[in-house]
Amino acid sequence: MFGVAVLGYGVVGSGVVEVIDKNFDRVAQSAAREIRVKYIVDLRDFPDSIYKELFVKDFAIIEADPEVRVVVETIGGVGAAYEFTRRSLLAGKSVVTSNKELVATRGWELLQIAKEKDVNYLFEASVGGGIPILRPITQCLAANRINEIYGILNGTTNYILTSMIKHGASFEDALKQAQANGYAEQNPTSDIEGIDACRKICILADLCFGRNMDPDWVKTVGISAVTPVDIHYADGAGYKIKLLGRAVSLQDGTKATAYVAPHLVREDNLLASVDGVMNGIVVRGNAIGDVMFYGAGAGKLPTASAVVADIIDAAKHDGARKYIGWDEGSRDTFFDSALLESRWYIRAQVTAAVARSAFGDVQILGGTDGETAFITSSMGKNTLDSTLESVTALTVFRVLG
Amino acid sequence: MFGVAVLGYGVVGSGVVEVIDKNFDRVAQSAAREIRVKYIVDLRDFPDSIYKELFVKDFAIIEADPEVRVVVETIGGVGAAYEFTRRSLLAGKSVVTSNKELVATRGWELLQIAKEKDVNYLFEASVGGGIPILRPITQCLAANRINEIYGILNGTTNYILTSMIKHGASFEDALKQAQANGYAEQNPTSDIEGIDACRKICILADLCFGRNMDPDWVKTVGISAVTPVDIHYADGAGYKIKLLGRAVSLQDGTKATAYVAPHLVREDNLLASVDGVMNGIVVRGNAIGDVMFYGAGAGKLPTASAVVADIIDAAKHDGARKYIGWDEGSRDTFFDSALLESRWYIRAQVTAAVARSAFGDVQILGGTDGETAFITSSMGKNTLDSTLESVTALTVFRVLG
Repeated sequence: MFGVAVLGYGVVGSGVVEVIDKNFDRVAQSAAREIRVKYIVDLRDFPDSIYKELFVKDFAIIEADPEVRVVVETIGGVGAAYEFTRRSLLAGKSVVTSNKELVATRGWELLQIAKEKDVNYLFEASVGGGIPILRPITQCLAANRINEIYGILNGTTNYILTSMIKHGASFEDALKQAQANGYAEQNPTSDIEGIDACRKICILADLCFGRNMDPDWVKTVGISAVTPVDIHYADGAGYKIKLLGRAVSLQDGTKATAYVAPHLVREDNLLASVDGVMNGIVVRGNAIGDVMFYGAGAGKLPTASAVVADIIDAAKHDGARKYIGWDEGSRDTFFDSALLESRWYIRAQVTAAVARSAFGDVQILGGTDGETAFITSSMGKNTLDSTLESVTALTVFRVLG
Repeated sequence: MFGVAVLGYGVVGSGVVEVIDKNFDRVAQSAAREIRVKYIVDLRDFPDSIYKELFVKDFAIIEADPEVRVVVETIGGVGAAYEFTRRSLLAGKSVVTSNKELVATRGWELLQIAKEKDVNYLFEASVGGGIPILRPITQCLAANRINEIYGILNGTTNYILTSMIKHGASFEDALKQAQANGYAEQNPTSDIEGIDACRKICILADLCFGRNMDPDWVKTVGISAVTPVDIHYADGAGYKIKLLGRAVSLQDGTKATAYVAPHLVREDNLLASVDGVMNGIVVRGNAIGDVMFYGAGAGKLPTASAVVADIIDAAKHDGARKYIGWDEGSRDTFFDSALLESRWYIRAQVTAAVARSAFGDVQILGGTDGETAFITSSMGKNTLDSTLESVTALTVFRVLG
């Protein structure tokens, strides 16, 4: 028996149990062996669950059972999740997770343990929910040097921005609506402030550039400063405002950076059409050019789909470690994203004439009494900031591309 | 040495040699071993090539050299390509190809030989150029039952349709422009008539549904009947006309179908925004929902990128066959795509009143003296055809979704 233990019976954990059950034959065919959930570990009781006989509360049972070959960690956070992942790997079991916080912050360390114990630590579901992205990067784009990766990595903020764009809602109203529809949590800080997207872009950068990127290094700006008036000006010029995570490597590969911030995205870029809770991720390789991966970035069954694909992969490689990992990074291989040049969208309390005299060649998007929205030529953040000393800016966003 | 022989030094073959050379370190790191092109087989002479010492004309040299572990077949067609693929596999070498015609028509047989000889026959580059699609389907979506797959599979026709949509060009002028820009061949039949897309949807159906689908069974309609006036009516109602390959399985998996035809695609479907030579492929899984893969569907380096990823995969699995394949199919497991219900776009020499009296509830898109464009309610092709006996239709296209 190829046994699986699921830690944490929340949205994703229960989805994993459901997908393995519902698609049993398809999973067995793909893995070339039968895969069964042997235990579900949760501190809560689920007396009405059809899987109730699988529940246990003591992790030591899993640790000691040689029939458990894969542990699925869907607890979240870095406390118990870290401890149980470590113990599972040390016990010679592969671990599959959707926990982006743990992978982004302790992934490097856990991959080292997996390597020593000749087991696998797999986390396709940690970025883009069910969208295949990490495996395509490591396998299908293996012939490419990847210099840039960016995308819409958080469904909650994209849902809110889409509501603002399509219905002219304010940020506050769009957030309330997202909460009412179950697309935003009651405490939405992690999504709204870009923290979730930051963890995901770090994992993507780890894999694309081959070195650990610490979320603490990554400048992260959320969407709470986006206003309907900015959306209106952007729209009039053919842009949509989207929250992007973006990671860029120097051409020679010696240094890389990443950041999270709202961007103006031109309508002819497919990302501008990625709406609602959907995610879209663009990878730029030196042979392939740009490829985009699109789909549901969250949700019970999509995320479970990615977890179960990793379980199948672990089953096919049982006793044979897959190479996935990256080197230890340091501040020396990181550069400040302020150095990245781009055009900038600015809404400021100036006339168009003052905007022109301060920034030279600008594209005026519109204005009212006492304020003007415009797009500058391409420059780094430091040049921008020094020019902004003479101009009171209300909003400043990067323009993509 | 892990040696590669490239058969056919055309666009893709020369791209493969270039990518292996240019990204040597990255390829070696991904494969965990050095990969070198040892021979290039072509009947032509390339005296000015920097790789000229690698050229040979006799395939028997490759067959006999144990250092050649992978043969790259980029000859095309089913003559020499079939013969050399067969002999390579029988000689215990893995084969990697971008040859969609050979995979679609003889893939099942060649995979059987590969299985018997414990080597790999890999063909990621045969669909979607460099876009990762076959490996994500077989691996990342392994936990899903896939019931439908469709997409823009041919860059030439999409380039022509995009020119017609954006610039109001006629089909003939758009084709000439595509030829002038190198996006269409001088004999464009295989692209224009949907034959290329047919081969690709067959390969996708083979992998998604697990049974061979013969291109001869698949109804294939190209784009030569698309006119600017149809594009205009579609546009007014919020649709783009796109050539789609589409494969659908019955829910219980017992039968499947595929076809290629122009469709009206609603602008809120991301595929409607896939323009120019780009490809977009949507896979619908029972857990993941819809995912889309987007990128350059052709071109030297993108296609070579996919070929080299397969070479890396073959190198990592040297001596250990990957499971990829499908069962033998038959007409008994195929059903006529005419049974698939959809709404239909019709432009006919009737008044709106006659259209309504013939089809009942229709959406009128517009009309001029003596002709009306409208969209019907959902019905199969046979019902449609019997109603069309009383209406002289000028154009009939399916409406997607």
